Amino acid sequence: MATETTDAIIRATGRSLCEHGYADLTMQRIAEESAVTTAAIHYHFETKEELLNAFLDDLIDRFEREVVVDASDPRAHLTAVLDAVFAADPDDEFPVALMELKAQAPYHETYRQRFVALDERLRSVIETAVEDGIEAGHFEACEPAVVARFVTTAINGGHVRMVALGEAPADTRRVVEAYLDAELGWRPEATA
Amino acid sequence: MATETTDAIIRATGRSLCEHGYADLTMQRIAEESAVTTAAIHYHFETKEELLNAFLDDLIDRFEREVVVDASDPRAHLTAVLDAVFAADPDDEFPVALMELKAQAPYHETYRQRFVALDERLRSVIETAVEDGIEAGHFEACEPAVVARFVTTAINGGHVRMVALGEAPADTRRVVEAYLDAELGWRPEATA
Repeated sequence: MATETTDAIIRATGRSLCEHGYADLTMQRIAEESAVTTAAIHYHFETKEELLNAFLDDLIDRFEREVVVDASDPRAHLTAVLDAVFAADPDDEFPVALMELKAQAPYHETYRQRFVALDERLRSVIETAVEDGIEAGHFEACEPAVVARFVTTAINGGHVRMVALGEAPADTRRVVEAYLDAELGWRPEATA
Repeated sequence: MATETTDAIIRATGRSLCEHGYADLTMQRIAEESAVTTAAIHYHFETKEELLNAFLDDLIDRFEREVVVDASDPRAHLTAVLDAVFAADPDDEFPVALMELKAQAPYHETYRQRFVALDERLRSVIETAVEDGIEAGHFEACEPAVVARFVTTAINGGHVRMVALGEAPADTRRVVEAYLDAELGWRPEATA
């Protein structure tokens, strides 16, 4: 399924979603964003929902690649996760587009399934890094599943705060790092 | 400004937003939801943005009323705040409508101003309750502003989780209560 054409369509879907918003996302606009005809888009994706499912699947794949780092260092692993989720520029339209899709989840079970999968993946990566860190003696004893849920909820909150309030992701990152420091004795690398 | 007519229009705006979503919200639909003509709506509110500003102002007013409780008991105060923010039913469409408006904030400075005001109010109420509780010897010493930011971020996260994942608000409330317990030695009233 992942051919050059479908990849081009998926990337154009993301750009169109950012530019026009969910309500005004059409096959025609996606065709204009890509070098692909609407007929070719319809050949690969029957509906707007199928297109957005592919877009979300691609997002999950990219998240997986970003958080795969040398698991022998749980601190580096947690840092990689925080880098991945707090990377967005507040002026970037992608977080806004993603928030719009999240608001559609109650009406599209297929989107919801993908957001649930992404959430489970995020919590699992954090939980594993915390477990590994405790086992290796880097972190203080705690309940990794509780820490993972807490951090994930704060990450979700940071996403809304960036979109609704225009707040810098770094503000939420500091909140999360203070929490991890209190729970795990985990200090992020000092920055200048 | 707050007359019976404008109140009726504002309530109809909320219902229409829940029913049709932001993109399909029109003066006509709001008129159908209320006993007010589109001409009368236009007389009071020139644009959809003005209508939604009034809707958000009303939301802030209602939040204020819900969190005003006897401030002599900081525990009851915190409980009232948590009751107010975690009251939603996951099947309720209001949180979805609110999430849609939050996703519009980057394009509507007037919405953003109101979300910022609501956020500041929420953080201030929590911060004051924590300060009062420390002063009265109910809570352990901590940084009230840090606790308030943390709890507010988690509340924001709980809102997304309810909408995007269909998760019960009670799940986030437990996360917040565990955090408050760890920070303040604050145990919510035991429930059966």
